[in-house]
Amino acid sequence: MTFASDNWAGAAPEIIAAIANANEGAVPAYGGDGLTKRVEARFAEIFECDVAVYFVATGGAANGLALSVMTPPYGMVLCHEESHIQMDECAGPEFLTGGAKLLPISGKGGKLTPDAVTKALNGFPERRPHGAPASVLSLTQGTECGTRYSVDELKSLTGLAHDAGLLVHMDGARFSNAVAASGESPAALSWQSGVDVLCFGGTKNGCIAAEAVVFFDKDKAHDFEMRRKRAGHLWSKMRFIAAQFDAYFHDGLWLALASHANKMASKLSTGLAAIDGVEISYATEINEVFACFPEGVADKLRAEGYWFYPWITPGDPVNGRMSRLITSFRTTEAEVDAFLACVRKFA
Amino acid sequence: MTFASDNWAGAAPEIIAAIANANEGAVPAYGGDGLTKRVEARFAEIFECDVAVYFVATGGAANGLALSVMTPPYGMVLCHEESHIQMDECAGPEFLTGGAKLLPISGKGGKLTPDAVTKALNGFPERRPHGAPASVLSLTQGTECGTRYSVDELKSLTGLAHDAGLLVHMDGARFSNAVAASGESPAALSWQSGVDVLCFGGTKNGCIAAEAVVFFDKDKAHDFEMRRKRAGHLWSKMRFIAAQFDAYFHDGLWLALASHANKMASKLSTGLAAIDGVEISYATEINEVFACFPEGVADKLRAEGYWFYPWITPGDPVNGRMSRLITSFRTTEAEVDAFLACVRKFA
Amino acid sequence: MTFASDNWAGAAPEIIAAIANANEGAVPAYGGDGLTKRVEARFAEIFECDVAVYFVATGGAANGLALSVMTPPYGMVLCHEESHIQMDECAGPEFLTGGAKLLPISGKGGKLTPDAVTKALNGFPERRPHGAPASVLSLTQGTECGTRYSVDELKSLTGLAHDAGLLVHMDGARFSNAVAASGESPAALSWQSGVDVLCFGGTKNGCIAAEAVVFFDKDKAHDFEMRRKRAGHLWSKMRFIAAQFDAYFHDGLWLALASHANKMASKLSTGLAAIDGVEISYATEINEVFACFPEGVADKLRAEGYWFYPWITPGDPVNGRMSRLITSFRTTEAEVDAFLACVRKFA
Amino acid sequence: MTFASDNWAGAAPEIIAAIANANEGAVPAYGGDGLTKRVEARFAEIFECDVAVYFVATGGAANGLALSVMTPPYGMVLCHEESHIQMDECAGPEFLTGGAKLLPISGKGGKLTPDAVTKALNGFPERRPHGAPASVLSLTQGTECGTRYSVDELKSLTGLAHDAGLLVHMDGARFSNAVAASGESPAALSWQSGVDVLCFGGTKNGCIAAEAVVFFDKDKAHDFEMRRKRAGHLWSKMRFIAAQFDAYFHDGLWLALASHANKMASKLSTGLAAIDGVEISYATEINEVFACFPEGVADKLRAEGYWFYPWITPGDPVNGRMSRLITSFRTTEAEVDAFLACVRKFA
Repeated sequence: MTFASDNWAGAAPEIIAAIANANEGAVPAYGGDGLTKRVEARFAEIFECDVAVYFVATGGAANGLALSVMTPPYGMVLCHEESHIQMDECAGPEFLTGGAKLLPISGKGGKLTPDAVTKALNGFPERRPHGAPASVLSLTQGTECGTRYSVDELKSLTGLAHDAGLLVHMDGARFSNAVAASGESPAALSWQSGVDVLCFGGTKNGCIAAEAVVFFDKDKAHDFEMRRKRAGHLWSKMRFIAAQFDAYFHDGLWLALASHANKMASKLSTGLAAIDGVEISYATEINEVFACFPEGVADKLRAEGYWFYPWITPGDPVNGRMSRLITSFRTTEAEVDAFLACVRKFA
Repeated sequence: MTFASDNWAGAAPEIIAAIANANEGAVPAYGGDGLTKRVEARFAEIFECDVAVYFVATGGAANGLALSVMTPPYGMVLCHEESHIQMDECAGPEFLTGGAKLLPISGKGGKLTPDAVTKALNGFPERRPHGAPASVLSLTQGTECGTRYSVDELKSLTGLAHDAGLLVHMDGARFSNAVAASGESPAALSWQSGVDVLCFGGTKNGCIAAEAVVFFDKDKAHDFEMRRKRAGHLWSKMRFIAAQFDAYFHDGLWLALASHANKMASKLSTGLAAIDGVEISYATEINEVFACFPEGVADKLRAEGYWFYPWITPGDPVNGRMSRLITSFRTTEAEVDAFLACVRKFA
Repeated sequence: MTFASDNWAGAAPEIIAAIANANEGAVPAYGGDGLTKRVEARFAEIFECDVAVYFVATGGAANGLALSVMTPPYGMVLCHEESHIQMDECAGPEFLTGGAKLLPISGKGGKLTPDAVTKALNGFPERRPHGAPASVLSLTQGTECGTRYSVDELKSLTGLAHDAGLLVHMDGARFSNAVAASGESPAALSWQSGVDVLCFGGTKNGCIAAEAVVFFDKDKAHDFEMRRKRAGHLWSKMRFIAAQFDAYFHDGLWLALASHANKMASKLSTGLAAIDGVEISYATEINEVFACFPEGVADKLRAEGYWFYPWITPGDPVNGRMSRLITSFRTTEAEVDAFLACVRKFA
Repeated sequence: MTFASDNWAGAAPEIIAAIANANEGAVPAYGGDGLTKRVEARFAEIFECDVAVYFVATGGAANGLALSVMTPPYGMVLCHEESHIQMDECAGPEFLTGGAKLLPISGKGGKLTPDAVTKALNGFPERRPHGAPASVLSLTQGTECGTRYSVDELKSLTGLAHDAGLLVHMDGARFSNAVAASGESPAALSWQSGVDVLCFGGTKNGCIAAEAVVFFDKDKAHDFEMRRKRAGHLWSKMRFIAAQFDAYFHDGLWLALASHANKMASKLSTGLAAIDGVEISYATEINEVFACFPEGVADKLRAEGYWFYPWITPGDPVNGRMSRLITSFRTTEAEVDAFLACVRKFA
């Protein structure tokens, strides 16, 4: 029984079936096949925008390669201090951009505020050629802390970034969860809110390995294909990523999977909040729950076979006492109920 | 009907089935699952050696990341001037190693000779810190030209390299084809012949995306896992690469697939050689055939719907007149016969 | 009349004379000359330690190249958020290290505290291979804010770093000023306090372009010479950097120059503090004075021909109202008096 | 007595004097001073062109940084296999460009021919995104083998490069020698012959450390200043490089120094050619002489105290028997006569 990560969940059966179905006959390699072309076009429909889209297998690749065409190698990427690009990619963005600097910024619940971004920009004046010039604002939607940006929040952040000459990158590893939870359209949560480039994740939400870098202004993608290739991220048998997205978008599967995961998190969060001594640390707005258990309870839960990680970050307000619980398309109501019963027993 | 590339062929049904079968329940991410552990151990059996093995999704990633732990960033990698790392990875090895130099060396049929390597080493004296120090000799087995190195050839090249203080890298995108064609064991064609690190390919031979970097001396792998991660090449749902190799090795599937492809190439080569005016450029020793058709014939074949690429390289002895024809596990005897008939018609 | 930077001051006459004197006859290039060897040995005397020392022309080169041998390219360097490596080198450390991450840490007066460093380390758990592993603690002595670390402060910071497996880098662009001001020996302020690698600056204190990277454990320097060369930082006519250090150390010139600059800063600071409405922001412990002038005064001073920069940083406590005034070996008492008179007139 | 390198020669007295003279008062740092501005303008006069010019201290920095703005990081630089960027900069161009590939090309006497360049371009087809796209042709003037390109030779090479969409880089470490020897104007040997960016060397010809990257189309320089800074190559006390070039151009000093060195080489070459058993390997067209001495003679000359290096390269036609003898502004007729007498004694 695991709440360790949506990465543990495996793939949705429809995704597996699509891979099998895509295995018909010989087709051009490296994305020259018809399925890849069709799925690229599908992205334009989903996002109501004439996008340039590129597939890769991991979120780290998507983020780092996207940033590499958005910033010069001596530029600076503003990001949340708990963001995946800052804390979980082993300095991958620095590497894949050829040396750009990440400027971590604090913010409650994994979210940046206009004030914090303004302060960061003002406090790091460019003074060419001395200070690394700020070039990109990176936002995560849904965030690492299970929260979401509203359209209004996005617009004020991206407006501020654009006014300062920055491009806006969105790490959308859990973008599907944010769309499903908000009821907003994919367009509303991305380019209509000022996002320039979205890393749209499939892997955490039921694909085996499928991420798409989506450029809402095709010109901004200029040499992405070269950078993807030289980093070893161009699949020869591209149809097998395309097939995943094909199924992912079919009949709204992506939103169904995300909605289910979100619903399980909500149930889990509500259940935990009702237990004396358990504190919910951040609003549960997608498929992640952050909770502080009473002393010793987390260990007892783990001893029962439950998997989940402690959540320790630079902005940690509770000194390492927070636990992160993630639900997925595979989490069942029964699993949540059983877990809650177990917490109640120990708390 | 295509002889364009083994990358066009899709995947073997057993590989697809294995992916589906691996999709049971939740398991640890990033390679912490049991299947990944088991398949890693399987590599030790296959190679009769206590190896360290790391999975990635593309051959470019495997080569570049392997080299990045074998050479300092200011080192020099000696390779064939027609090798994949030199001509087909968009300067990926330079990037992934942090700036190492590739020194291309000529050689007939895609093969390096001890004389050519010695001349290259002698002609580029190190003179610390001025010349980039030679650090790696990279060999491709089977080669880009459809040929193979014998065990004796390998031993004289790797002996020479080791004597000069170099490590030996093998690009084994078509290692399976070389093993199948030679009748030698995987061990004999790798570490027993002096290879330090092998990039063992599954993708071209029936997997969807599965490559393994195999270190025969585990200590030499030291920070590979960090480099893989920061380059965005660590899969979260690693079981889906592991599953491919699991099926690949099961009941000798890998050799069966490779043998079939080799056999089709042999049939194609023999058939072409018997046609007046068609010249076979290189010995057909794996699943690639290089042929010069009479003037105009290649275009006519393409007009009939046959796909294959011209083969143009720095060492091109025939001014762009050579064609490359690749067979795969999926190529049928009937396809070869039909193609040969068509060539006979036009030649 | 300038308090803009010690970089504006030109060179001490003794340094110029030494360059002229070094221009005798032909000598081996790239540091193979006798003078370079002698001056390298002189560093061992000055630091009472068998050091490995390498000369470069700029502080940015010294810092970035030093770090490049101290951290793996995927490592993390902890530094003050106002440090030169973070704010003034245009992402040079990220570039020269091959992609390492800088983790900026706040601290009053340009100084890091053990608490802040501990919190940073705890808040960024390594979790191989996800988080970039902390590899280096970088300290600046004297700091960007004109303060100094005491021996005790250094020892507690370096002890903490070593316990956590980090190496300690010291940006010593104004190390001379710190030595002169503290009365401590060069050894006491460096290796005896736990510093592993010191970037020892000459340029800001009267040289034309002379910086030395000093490794107190020679083994730790391993491939510095290769990295210096490939980055274009190996001078062919090395004797002309060596000559500068030769004069710099002769008869205590370096400490005389630094002491004078420090004394002028002290006089300036004391004078300013006595003026109503002027606030001294940080303790004046080397040759830099940070002051807040009453509204409008800084502009009037500039209109009189005085040069100095506003000091705007991430940790800026006064919203851009702070001015930085730097003295040098060339600053005269009369200049300071004249400036103080001018401030008194306007304040 | 040395013919080892022009790097051993030290500096011309006028250069030293200029450094001393530039040491007047405080001036803005980082090139904001009046002298730097004046000398930049002087370059425009010398080259009869409205250039953008940037100073650095080493030739390796000039070449690598120039290339970094001329090629994308995944591009390919065609160069002579014996060129300095290929053989003597420790993979610096690969590093400073962020990973670009160097494609070495053979050619007699250090010179590339249009045929060889055409063959290299044809043999390495781009096939986006697989092959690294050719982006720059790099020429060295005067060459590493002591020869020169004529205006006509340059024009046919640069025309070919431009037709193929490449920019042309010129490594001009000995450009002064080429100008002096050819009688052509600096403009004729650079932009009027199709050179886009020239690395103009001062160091080998009497400066202490002074190189200029000259962009004949100012737009092509776009972010050079940022790349120079982040690589640690921006001098704070820039006036001390500017001063060197100021003196270098004053009263034709640069051409006087180069002419003298050339004349000494010519005398040396003519003298050697007249000695039985000594072979001159390449035409002596600047200040370098390449000669094969009879067996054992080179060692005897070295035993007499003469310094010179063996010349071993990939294209070496004489198996390591060639010696390189370099003259400088400091070489005297008496030294040449003495050396010739010594050779005659041993030959």
